[in-house]
Amino acid sequence: MILDEKISNELKILALETINNAGSGHSGSVLSAGDILYTLYTKHLLTNGMKTMNRDRFVLSNGHACAILYSILAGLKYFDISELKKFRKFNGMLSGHPEIEIPGIDASTGPLGQGVGNAVGMAIAESIMNARFNLSHYTYCMVGDGCLEEGVGLEALSIAGLYKLNKFILLYDKNDVTLDGKLSKSSADNIIMKFQAMNFNVLECDGHNINAIDDAITLAKKEKNRPTLIIFHTIIGKDTSLEGSNLSHGKVFDKEEIAKLRNKLNITSPYLDLSEETKNQLKKIKQEILKKYQKRVDNFSKYLDENKDLEKKYFKFIENKFNYKEKEFIENNSTRQLNNKVLNEIAKKVENIVVLSADLSSSTKVKIENDSDYSSTNRQGRNIAVGIREHAMGAIANGIALHKGLNVICSTFLAFSNYMLPAIRMAAIMKLDVIFVFSHSSIYDTPDGITHLPVEQLDQLRLIPDLIVCRPFNSTELYRSYDWYFNRKGPICLILSRGDIEYCPSNDDVSKGGYKLFVDNSCDAYILSSGSEVPLAIEVMDKLENYYNVNVVSMLSLEIFEEQNNRYKNSILSKPIFVIESSTCVKYLKYTSEDKIFSVKSFGTSGDEANLKKKYGYTSDIIAKKIINVMKKENLKEGK
Amino acid sequence: MILDEKISNELKILALETINNAGSGHSGSVLSAGDILYTLYTKHLLTNGMKTMNRDRFVLSNGHACAILYSILAGLKYFDISELKKFRKFNGMLSGHPEIEIPGIDASTGPLGQGVGNAVGMAIAESIMNARFNLSHYTYCMVGDGCLEEGVGLEALSIAGLYKLNKFILLYDKNDVTLDGKLSKSSADNIIMKFQAMNFNVLECDGHNINAIDDAITLAKKEKNRPTLIIFHTIIGKDTSLEGSNLSHGKVFDKEEIAKLRNKLNITSPYLDLSEETKNQLKKIKQEILKKYQKRVDNFSKYLDENKDLEKKYFKFIENKFNYKEKEFIENNSTRQLNNKVLNEIAKKVENIVVLSADLSSSTKVKIENDSDYSSTNRQGRNIAVGIREHAMGAIANGIALHKGLNVICSTFLAFSNYMLPAIRMAAIMKLDVIFVFSHSSIYDTPDGITHLPVEQLDQLRLIPDLIVCRPFNSTELYRSYDWYFNRKGPICLILSRGDIEYCPSNDDVSKGGYKLFVDNSCDAYILSSGSEVPLAIEVMDKLENYYNVNVVSMLSLEIFEEQNNRYKNSILSKPIFVIESSTCVKYLKYTSEDKIFSVKSFGTSGDEANLKKKYGYTSDIIAKKIINVMKKENLKEGK
Repeated sequence: MILDEKISNELKILALETINNAGSGHSGSVLSAGDILYTLYTKHLLTNGMKTMNRDRFVLSNGHACAILYSILAGLKYFDISELKKFRKFNGMLSGHPEIEIPGIDASTGPLGQGVGNAVGMAIAESIMNARFNLSHYTYCMVGDGCLEEGVGLEALSIAGLYKLNKFILLYDKNDVTLDGKLSKSSADNIIMKFQAMNFNVLECDGHNINAIDDAITLAKKEKNRPTLIIFHTIIGKDTSLEGSNLSHGKVFDKEEIAKLRNKLNITSPYLDLSEETKNQLKKIKQEILKKYQKRVDNFSKYLDENKDLEKKYFKFIENKFNYKEKEFIENNSTRQLNNKVLNEIAKKVENIVVLSADLSSSTKVKIENDSDYSSTNRQGRNIAVGIREHAMGAIANGIALHKGLNVICSTFLAFSNYMLPAIRMAAIMKLDVIFVFSHSSIYDTPDGITHLPVEQLDQLRLIPDLIVCRPFNSTELYRSYDWYFNRKGPICLILSRGDIEYCPSNDDVSKGGYKLFVDNSCDAYILSSGSEVPLAIEVMDKLENYYNVNVVSMLSLEIFEEQNNRYKNSILSKPIFVIESSTCVKYLKYTSEDKIFSVKSFGTSGDEANLKKKYGYTSDIIAKKIINVMKKENLKEGK
Repeated sequence: MILDEKISNELKILALETINNAGSGHSGSVLSAGDILYTLYTKHLLTNGMKTMNRDRFVLSNGHACAILYSILAGLKYFDISELKKFRKFNGMLSGHPEIEIPGIDASTGPLGQGVGNAVGMAIAESIMNARFNLSHYTYCMVGDGCLEEGVGLEALSIAGLYKLNKFILLYDKNDVTLDGKLSKSSADNIIMKFQAMNFNVLECDGHNINAIDDAITLAKKEKNRPTLIIFHTIIGKDTSLEGSNLSHGKVFDKEEIAKLRNKLNITSPYLDLSEETKNQLKKIKQEILKKYQKRVDNFSKYLDENKDLEKKYFKFIENKFNYKEKEFIENNSTRQLNNKVLNEIAKKVENIVVLSADLSSSTKVKIENDSDYSSTNRQGRNIAVGIREHAMGAIANGIALHKGLNVICSTFLAFSNYMLPAIRMAAIMKLDVIFVFSHSSIYDTPDGITHLPVEQLDQLRLIPDLIVCRPFNSTELYRSYDWYFNRKGPICLILSRGDIEYCPSNDDVSKGGYKLFVDNSCDAYILSSGSEVPLAIEVMDKLENYYNVNVVSMLSLEIFEEQNNRYKNSILSKPIFVIESSTCVKYLKYTSEDKIFSVKSFGTSGDEANLKKKYGYTSDIIAKKIINVMKKENLKEGK
């Protein structure tokens, strides 16, 4: 049997050669984090490399350190070692930062701090699934200095401490160097004290001593009441000419430098490969892991087998097979209130929905009524407070979705959606099933003033690829939005009004994302609108009655509408198109010219609804008059 | 003389009645923060209520607590007390959250945590101006629980500790209640320990005892080596029926409840007004403050008078009067490198530029070469490291701009601009002179993979009102962008390429934001492009030579172009318009139809530049062919 150190060093050389072959990548962390990851993957992380429920989760929050992780995953044959040759290359499987599609990768990472939030979300999900079904695993997360400086990371860590997530183990590759220089240049935090203040168990350890690393992780796993931070003291670029220097961070070591390191570490494995003895040893190690992993799976299966009711429910949770009835709410009401009713109807049946709130559930109305608060002593409570931490809320929601087994919904004001945009982008990138709810959707929705009134936010969301944005105006549209959430892969945004919206029925075409609200045989023009502006559009339609035949199109979701066939789309778009929406309306420019769009062009201001509507042009008198002018000017159609 | 407590209570009643009269607002914090703010404003904050350099700064980071602040400012006659009647009303001066335009308000606040960053930025600016010119003042910042949970706040606080900003004093209104419930529901942090870990001096104090508050602030001001946190233990909604309850947070107390409180506190001042004796006493207090403030001003003037060289330089700093020569760089180079050269040319003359870096200056190239790092012992270093904390970087840059006296520029990758969007929005709202630089601007700019490749970010920025976004392709365009920064009010974004851009000269029309690169007499179509895609557009133009007369328009800034008169704009827009840009190009839909736009429609992927360009359609062959097809199909013009 060869020594762990030898195998670990071989894997590091393999990673450095992978980077050398790619022509770009991050070598510094290969040499600082290598021994930690080797120890984790060979002695602790129980997984079969597939996305199974019982596996331990691991998130590499400092995603740039992926070369060494890929090297270890290849060594353990979670994928073929030849893939390393295509690292960072076009059409290669191994991208420049970890991606969820890669075997053995539990979260796509890259933007720093996000992975910490994801891992905390996974640990929360585990705690819930554990309380309900006895599912049990650890969630490990590796971070560099960056993830601990990022606000989203700091927010998430407070939550981990608050909820006493003792199976959340944070592995800190503390090499004291960041891209631009020594860590001391940008941080003077006392990390031990800071984490203890956040209720963490803190351990310290030499990050290049495999026995010590092993012991520290073993100790962390025994902690029963707090999450654990293990501070691994490491050396970036260890044993190279750039040892300890920030210049090693994004360095591609040339073959000569790697040869020197091979010599120093006495490594003679083939180029971009591992020695036979290392392969054999890793094979044995993997068998050992799989055996232990299988034992965990068997125990869990046995438990379920002995608890048939639970078993049935567990599979309902996992397969997300719930039926709920759509109870319509025919009432003049705000969509935040309607959503509260719809969500609670759904939540009665869909038992695995959990709700995250960034301290605005009183206002967004996104909460499960008659249910309890999740806490360290009540893991089954379905309302999970995350404090005034929108960004971590998003990253944690992503982690819960990554974990599987639960549906997750979170909320804040639309004006503050930009606090969590990086997390929403990651949800779209990973195609995660998360509902992001944003209320207070209009420029006239509150007297709170300029900072609280959304302008650009709705369209900033719509610009993110693979994100469905819904702005419903009645309960039917709310149910359709939830349909898309349950029946499609990927995140959904729900944009809700603060103020009341006069009721108007939808029709079957609602499933097409954009649809005519009224039957028309001949129509001179359509008004596209959504959410809180739909009643206004109808009012405008009524005012135009003596001039033109106009119909209103509710544009519940531009993305879903865009997916429809041209024939359907043109049944609307071939006529003159007007748009009324409290947003920059920039995406509607595809359908019509700027002079036909009633959008918001400047920041908001304090005031009452009536005056704000007038100021921003959202009154039927103003709009009807303008539409008549445009129709005349452009000779689109003579008035009646 | 009447007691402080009496005046403070009268001001609270005034604030509650202000809210009652408005019909909305946040009463809870009036009663928890009132005594702290009263003590600060009457016994410590040296200001004349105007935006003068020598004043102490105060930022109400928990902006929703503004009613009590407005009440105090009115009491001290920084504006007329009658303004309170228009609180939150349309066309009233006193908006629902503090706005910089209001006398006595040093920063617009509302989105939580931003104000903390602003205040840290002000304290950094003070430390620089102090080291250079002996300018000296304190920066106070009030926070509630929310600001200390928000990532942006936490990031900024670490920086305050790192840089030992001893004149930064954080006033924490710790009422242990947030909107949704008890603080303990969402946070279990040991705040004292957490702040000590961030190198803060931490004091604790009864927030309802004016003498104790006075003493605590006095003590904080004496601290020489660390910023200070004063934890004020307070009671939300104190002395009302909702005392201690989260329900008081956004409550509008009715007249009956206010009458009860008046009774309890023995307050008999007129409705929405102050008693004569309180007015008189506040008048005296203000005279006292103004006297002390004037003494500070006089001392400073005397110092400058005795140091004539410094005086001259000080006024150059304050009036921002520097001349620099535009040295063009005629070279094929990336705009990040060109910007490094241009910035450094400018920085040679413009001595008051400071550069913030979120640990990517090695990559964005935004740094002042041959200058030192700012630190607690080297306040004049012009490169200020803020660590991997993009969001705080933005908020701190805003604070430096708010302080006045310095120009400020900060940078990260375009893909991560969304980490700091809330701060950029605040810069636009406050019209602050900040340059936000974002490099790695194209979908083919790095093999780092999906998370590092920008898609929607450029247009997300362009959607923010009052923000100028520049995407230059040569040094001339870089100089124009800096021109706009120096000669207009408000923030500028500079979007820079990682890769080289083939040199092509600009012409005088560059100042119009969008302009033809080549002289044309007759032209069949224009290709609008920017930054790294300009050479590609020129290549396409050349390829089309045998078919059509095409000219390339460099769209340096859509916002500046939009400001031009119609005649100028139509000299371009009246022809068929094609667009080539690595972005979603959504704003160009105003000028042309989707089939003529070569935009990015999906997330990026790892790979080399050539393959990525091909995949996303950014090659001249692909584009030239498509343009010919569109021209033919739409019968726009027969080919030559």
